[in-house]
Amino acid sequence: MADILHRIGIKDATPQRVYDALTTVDGLAGWWTDDTKGNGEVGGTLEFRFPPGGFDMRVIDLKPGEQVVWQVVGGPEEWIGTTVDWHLRQDGDYTVVLFKHQGWAEPVEFMHHCSTKWATYLMSLKSLVETGQGKPSPRDVQISDWH
Amino acid sequence: MADILHRIGIKDATPQRVYDALTTVDGLAGWWTDDTKGNGEVGGTLEFRFPPGGFDMRVIDLKPGEQVVWQVVGGPEEWIGTTVDWHLRQDGDYTVVLFKHQGWAEPVEFMHHCSTKWATYLMSLKSLVETGQGKPSPRDVQISDWH
Repeated sequence: MADILHRIGIKDATPQRVYDALTTVDGLAGWWTDDTKGNGEVGGTLEFRFPPGGFDMRVIDLKPGEQVVWQVVGGPEEWIGTTVDWHLRQDGDYTVVLFKHQGWAEPVEFMHHCSTKWATYLMSLKSLVETGQGKPSPRDVQISDWH
Repeated sequence: MADILHRIGIKDATPQRVYDALTTVDGLAGWWTDDTKGNGEVGGTLEFRFPPGGFDMRVIDLKPGEQVVWQVVGGPEEWIGTTVDWHLRQDGDYTVVLFKHQGWAEPVEFMHHCSTKWATYLMSLKSLVETGQGKPSPRDVQISDWH
């Protein structure tokens, strides 16, 4: 099994504000994709769509202001059954976000791509919370021939 | 063991131009850090310095236009003995870069940070080759309280 790991710090934010951006359709649409639908409560499913395809995430754990865990239930076959775990904490003026996309069966080339793409979306989340403006799809940062 | 993986595509580039940016002091200084010194040939050591510290990399394998492999011989203790592997190939109009920073003993918080920071430096490499202008340290993208 292989994991994608990331860490960002969001300045002058609170964990609760970041949590809202990870658990509400409006918040998620502000940094990941305009085309976000569904229900961000535990047991609900969030549907994220992008020009090349999309992901359905079942919300499996929520600790307000601290943690969000999704299980991938729809999308590319390499993603099915993997989990996305967000951990939040306050550290001085920053909210630190520890991100894990866990349980890839193999470190395939698509996983390399998703790792870099997640980093650009995390920077979009940081920008959304710090400035009010993220870069969600379809205005996302293009990293390669794959988008 | 845990690995950091990334993939970018550099438009209208050739693998040889990207290879030059990974094997010459001028090229490396254009996207990673202004403060780059040393010898990029096999058996040589490259010294990269940043405001918070730095890394010494022994060049252990080179395949012109295809692959660059470094072993970390100086820097933070979590980095010592890890390897950084760059694989290049042409894919249509793009040079695809597959990046692996392999052999982390544990998936510590610092590894999460380095994963995101590598992504921003890979985007700097892409920008350098595509536009002539990267974002090397100390003008690098700030991702958190850690820099």
